[in-house]
Amino acid sequence: MNYNSLCENISVNEQGHLTFAGQDVVILAKEYSTPLYLMDEARIRSNCRVYTNTLRECFGENALPLYASKAASFAKMYSIVSEEGFGTDVVSSGELYTALLAGIDAKNIFFHSNNKTDADIAYGIDKGVGHFVVDNVEELDAINEIALSKGVRQGVLLRLTPGIDPHTYAAVATGKVDSKFGSAIETGQAKSIAAYALTLKGIKLEGFHCHVGSQVFDADVYMRSAEIMLSFFKQMKDEYGYETEIFDMGGGFGVRYVQSDPYIDIAESIRITANFVKAKALELGIKLPLICMEPGRSIVADAGMTVYTAGTVKKITGYKNYVSIDGSMADNPRYALYGSKYTVIHAGRALDECNFECSLVGRCCESGDIIQENIMLPDGIKRGDVIAVATTGAYNYSMSSNYNRLTRPPVVMLSNGTSYVAVKRESLEDIVRNDVL
Amino acid sequence: MNYNSLCENISVNEQGHLTFAGQDVVILAKEYSTPLYLMDEARIRSNCRVYTNTLRECFGENALPLYASKAASFAKMYSIVSEEGFGTDVVSSGELYTALLAGIDAKNIFFHSNNKTDADIAYGIDKGVGHFVVDNVEELDAINEIALSKGVRQGVLLRLTPGIDPHTYAAVATGKVDSKFGSAIETGQAKSIAAYALTLKGIKLEGFHCHVGSQVFDADVYMRSAEIMLSFFKQMKDEYGYETEIFDMGGGFGVRYVQSDPYIDIAESIRITANFVKAKALELGIKLPLICMEPGRSIVADAGMTVYTAGTVKKITGYKNYVSIDGSMADNPRYALYGSKYTVIHAGRALDECNFECSLVGRCCESGDIIQENIMLPDGIKRGDVIAVATTGAYNYSMSSNYNRLTRPPVVMLSNGTSYVAVKRESLEDIVRNDVL
Repeated sequence: MNYNSLCENISVNEQGHLTFAGQDVVILAKEYSTPLYLMDEARIRSNCRVYTNTLRECFGENALPLYASKAASFAKMYSIVSEEGFGTDVVSSGELYTALLAGIDAKNIFFHSNNKTDADIAYGIDKGVGHFVVDNVEELDAINEIALSKGVRQGVLLRLTPGIDPHTYAAVATGKVDSKFGSAIETGQAKSIAAYALTLKGIKLEGFHCHVGSQVFDADVYMRSAEIMLSFFKQMKDEYGYETEIFDMGGGFGVRYVQSDPYIDIAESIRITANFVKAKALELGIKLPLICMEPGRSIVADAGMTVYTAGTVKKITGYKNYVSIDGSMADNPRYALYGSKYTVIHAGRALDECNFECSLVGRCCESGDIIQENIMLPDGIKRGDVIAVATTGAYNYSMSSNYNRLTRPPVVMLSNGTSYVAVKRESLEDIVRNDVL
Repeated sequence: MNYNSLCENISVNEQGHLTFAGQDVVILAKEYSTPLYLMDEARIRSNCRVYTNTLRECFGENALPLYASKAASFAKMYSIVSEEGFGTDVVSSGELYTALLAGIDAKNIFFHSNNKTDADIAYGIDKGVGHFVVDNVEELDAINEIALSKGVRQGVLLRLTPGIDPHTYAAVATGKVDSKFGSAIETGQAKSIAAYALTLKGIKLEGFHCHVGSQVFDADVYMRSAEIMLSFFKQMKDEYGYETEIFDMGGGFGVRYVQSDPYIDIAESIRITANFVKAKALELGIKLPLICMEPGRSIVADAGMTVYTAGTVKKITGYKNYVSIDGSMADNPRYALYGSKYTVIHAGRALDECNFECSLVGRCCESGDIIQENIMLPDGIKRGDVIAVATTGAYNYSMSSNYNRLTRPPVVMLSNGTSYVAVKRESLEDIVRNDVL
């Protein structure tokens, strides 16, 4: 298999070993032990530049890409994307705390979430967060009240649902009217919350946000939602004399997890969408707002790889074969949650024919602890072999748990032919740190 | 609704507030803040005593219940079950480390897992773990080798799959032949690994383990698997002169999450199974081994309750209603993973009519972050109200993550009309403890 065609940072060296970011994965497994999250810093940066360069080309200085940090949130990630000119999207006090620790300017932080607590709001205002992305009217009231009590007029975007179903699976379709997120344009709730926001003294309404879903491979979805959103801005201008300053179009561009996934040219999709947005704004006679996009997955997914060591290889005569690894659904719950597809590679025998059909299962005491079902690996795979799972940079470390009291793997960043630890491996002491006897 | 009929530790006081273990849940929410895991120590102990008393009644001193600690693993839990006369089942070095921290005698520890690493094995042997439950031949070899190198003869049970499908859902059916766990009797692999174990100098074969699945409401499943296992023991006696000393029957008794779940009399199911096992052993002419059972869920599930604060109440005209809370799939991933049912109660208005249909959704930035869909709560529910989810003692804290960098709730133990912290709330400092800048 040509792994390089999955992502150009994956290759095979002369020893037949898998390489990631040009480095031998078998050697990295030995150096750092397994399970191990690897990340390719150059790939993170080049993924960022697709957005920064294309947005600049299309909108000049009138655009700002934001990193949707829930995809992979740890201090070093915030530094890297900030160096690449990204603003930051956080969804909790924990993500905000981490971003601030990394020295991110709070003015460039957008605080999301469908349910911010009063404590979150107070913390965000105290730290000078530039923009709250407000989901609903109770939250708007809470922000207004807390902002007033602190003598602040808080910059706010309202999250709207344009009523688009991106035809992806239900768990990642968030732009539909029937959603826990935002206020629907279709039902009139969007207009009513926007009009209400304009009356609040603690709120500075800066604009609107929408997010149509994840794993989107079709620019058409963004155009359809932009059309609805821009028409809404026009309505706000006509009826309330309100000019939208910021239009946050959300994230969602798809990522290739397996060779059969479609390929998307993100730069070209941004250009197509940008041309549409500019033409539509002109047609509607509204000022073009500052355009934000919020990629998360497409910044980090293919910049990540997880490395495991195989344990037992179980051949159940007349049934099927299982290869177990020293990781689990605790470090990658995405197959258990969504049946997500991944590409699995025998790192030490990356050029060998894959003629052994098996399921790759984790070490958790749970039948559903599967990393990938019915994959092909080289025959003769055995205990101690190094196994890599590609494209795990998004929603693996960030969703990881200590199920079975397993310690979480470290995140090791590969950079310029060398490597450094971005997140240390959890210790047994970490596991019991909050236990009280 | 009569919450008391779900579990007798749930009731409503004169203020119409929900009580758990006799304590006002609204007051507890105020005292400890939310989200919050509550656990009822007396219920844990009485759940334990169902097993200890019934096993003693049936088998005298010839039985040992083990706590399957993956259901809820933290130091205090190990102390409580140990005080109740339970041995302990661990599945990782992390669980073992926690059990030892709690002062558990290593001789009464059974070390499970389908994939123990060499490091796990060495750690377990060094700490004097009494029994390894060995999943497969590679693991058996590894234990033999490491035990020999340390001059130890390690007590071992072999995990077998009796080929029983307990007719529960696939993710919890583990006794089938086609399983990542154990060696199948049907295929002859069980006999061959047992015969092999008898030849190894570093291994003392003590007996066999099986586990048919989870959420089992029918004693018949245990009898069917016991019949197969005991026939296997007889075969081992006849062919190898080997007498099985320990028969670990596994866990799996069901728990009532909602009123419509079936009720199971665990004591009676144990009695029925015990009578069957005793009669069968007599019939086969084999010595009755020490009988182990491994309950996890049925010890802790109904001893737990999670308490949240409501955020927004979203009524989407023509679609549906959403109530969001300050917790999420990060503290209870079981609906996202399995669509698990739970009983949700408005803690401050526990006697009010529930006429408002809604979905209870979490605060994670993810559409699939749902705690429960299409439930009934009192109309007029609003931001700040305290919401309880019952029967969350098993696989909630233990499966919790820091997704969205949310801090994990504390575990507060209710005991004798008072309460104490068994696991402290995670701090923002905890979240970034391993981040390196």
